[in-house]
Amino acid sequence: MKKKVIGVIGGNTVGKKHYDAAYKTGQEIARRGAVLVCGGLSGVMEASCKGAKKEGGVTIGILPSKNKNTANKYVDIPVATGIGEARNTVIVNTADGFVAIDGKEGTLSEIAFALKAGKPVAGIDTYDIPAIMKCSTPEEAVEKVFLKLEGA
Amino acid sequence: MKKKVIGVIGGNTVGKKHYDAAYKTGQEIARRGAVLVCGGLSGVMEASCKGAKKEGGVTIGILPSKNKNTANKYVDIPVATGIGEARNTVIVNTADGFVAIDGKEGTLSEIAFALKAGKPVAGIDTYDIPAIMKCSTPEEAVEKVFLKLEGA
Amino acid sequence: MKKKVIGVIGGNTVGKKHYDAAYKTGQEIARRGAVLVCGGLSGVMEASCKGAKKEGGVTIGILPSKNKNTANKYVDIPVATGIGEARNTVIVNTADGFVAIDGKEGTLSEIAFALKAGKPVAGIDTYDIPAIMKCSTPEEAVEKVFLKLEGA
Amino acid sequence: MKKKVIGVIGGNTVGKKHYDAAYKTGQEIARRGAVLVCGGLSGVMEASCKGAKKEGGVTIGILPSKNKNTANKYVDIPVATGIGEARNTVIVNTADGFVAIDGKEGTLSEIAFALKAGKPVAGIDTYDIPAIMKCSTPEEAVEKVFLKLEGA
Repeated sequence: MKKKVIGVIGGNTVGKKHYDAAYKTGQEIARRGAVLVCGGLSGVMEASCKGAKKEGGVTIGILPSKNKNTANKYVDIPVATGIGEARNTVIVNTADGFVAIDGKEGTLSEIAFALKAGKPVAGIDTYDIPAIMKCSTPEEAVEKVFLKLEGA
Repeated sequence: MKKKVIGVIGGNTVGKKHYDAAYKTGQEIARRGAVLVCGGLSGVMEASCKGAKKEGGVTIGILPSKNKNTANKYVDIPVATGIGEARNTVIVNTADGFVAIDGKEGTLSEIAFALKAGKPVAGIDTYDIPAIMKCSTPEEAVEKVFLKLEGA
Repeated sequence: MKKKVIGVIGGNTVGKKHYDAAYKTGQEIARRGAVLVCGGLSGVMEASCKGAKKEGGVTIGILPSKNKNTANKYVDIPVATGIGEARNTVIVNTADGFVAIDGKEGTLSEIAFALKAGKPVAGIDTYDIPAIMKCSTPEEAVEKVFLKLEGA
Repeated sequence: MKKKVIGVIGGNTVGKKHYDAAYKTGQEIARRGAVLVCGGLSGVMEASCKGAKKEGGVTIGILPSKNKNTANKYVDIPVATGIGEARNTVIVNTADGFVAIDGKEGTLSEIAFALKAGKPVAGIDTYDIPAIMKCSTPEEAVEKVFLKLEGA
């Protein structure tokens, strides 16, 4: 059976609080044996990959650039799309569920595509969209996404 | 000088009220000599194209499909992207400003990309995002977008 | 009935001979009442748009950049895709038939996608691919594409 | 240091000879510790993934569809782009070098993009493009790509 794939979405600049939340989210995803997919850049993306690697997980970075050296150093597999911001749709199509942390309009576009696709989105300090499962901690967020994916 | 290009975004299924609002938005865009760009399908997209053609305007439909026959019949120039929902970014990159009418997650993704790009978005009965200029009528919405584009 | 849409593909740097061939190709497309679509940049793209505008035609430039100011000045309608070289598929999906003039690997990718889609391609001094209709003059190339599109 | 990423490109329907060549190509890539990337579907893509998995390698399938269940069963990590044939550019941007086996116009588009990017392409029974390194066996093809990547 294929491993679950969890997307972590959020801004490329973050303060310590959200960097830590993203790091713990990555850890939690890896501990559950899921693959982490993200946009491959800095901020929330980097922190979540770093956390996943700490726990021996697998990380995929779906980059806007056609240059795979733009990936942060915790990305195992950089996918260099070369399609700019349109790569947000590739992240959404590739993951089964999402944790959104903080973030700005780019994150909002990913939330929108994820909800359109009927995929679960847990949110920590992010946009106030009704269909998002609001969470206080990374553990709660990852748990809620997994429960949805398991049909609970 | 290049003509202004105004994007009309909204759902592909609408009730009479929003169909009429989209129609009038298309008329108003054409009367001001701007080009109308949209997703080329039904609902708000079709209504706005129909309104623009009534006033002799030019309409561009940026389609998800690679088959240009999927465009509504009021589209002058169908651009068949073949890139699915990623075409939402092409609409946003191509237009200078936007009127959003009603709509669901697809529309939200376009609003998000537009705001990220720093382009003005006027909204009629759509998502409650702070940066959207909330409007009651098509005339007001088009006027507000033009004022922003003219630097007023 | 929708107007026919003819794609002109070729390199963004050309010598005088191919610039002239592209210019005449654009003229011939416009004289026949078809819309010209191209990649919107310099070289063959610019020359063909210039020729089409000389004859009062309509020109569409499907750009790799998300900045529509990258279009050459003979493009009426710049479509700013922001998807980089992947925009070659958008050009191919949008046009009904093609004239290829000179060009390098980018042009070859467009020829490949066009042939895959079963669309006619006339070629002047371009790649030696069996399915291309080899031509000596712009008039012959445009004529052959139109004959194919009319089912002759 | 990042692992090398080798793309295997070719048709989605093949005879036994090319299926076997693709299988051996996948084996050889995995034996050298490189990651295999392909279009994720049937034919040459499936055979190469199967070969790579036989040797314990890692396989990435970059799919045209937004449904990751369209991947063949030997793909470890399906990337569901949802951008149709434009995904060919994502394959090219993601890999460092390529082995092309047989194939039709889709493969030709990938060869074209790869050569444009200045990346090495070894070919077995594929298009007769001068810049392709023509090879008789999978071992020779993989060897030639690795030699180029190592600057030999």
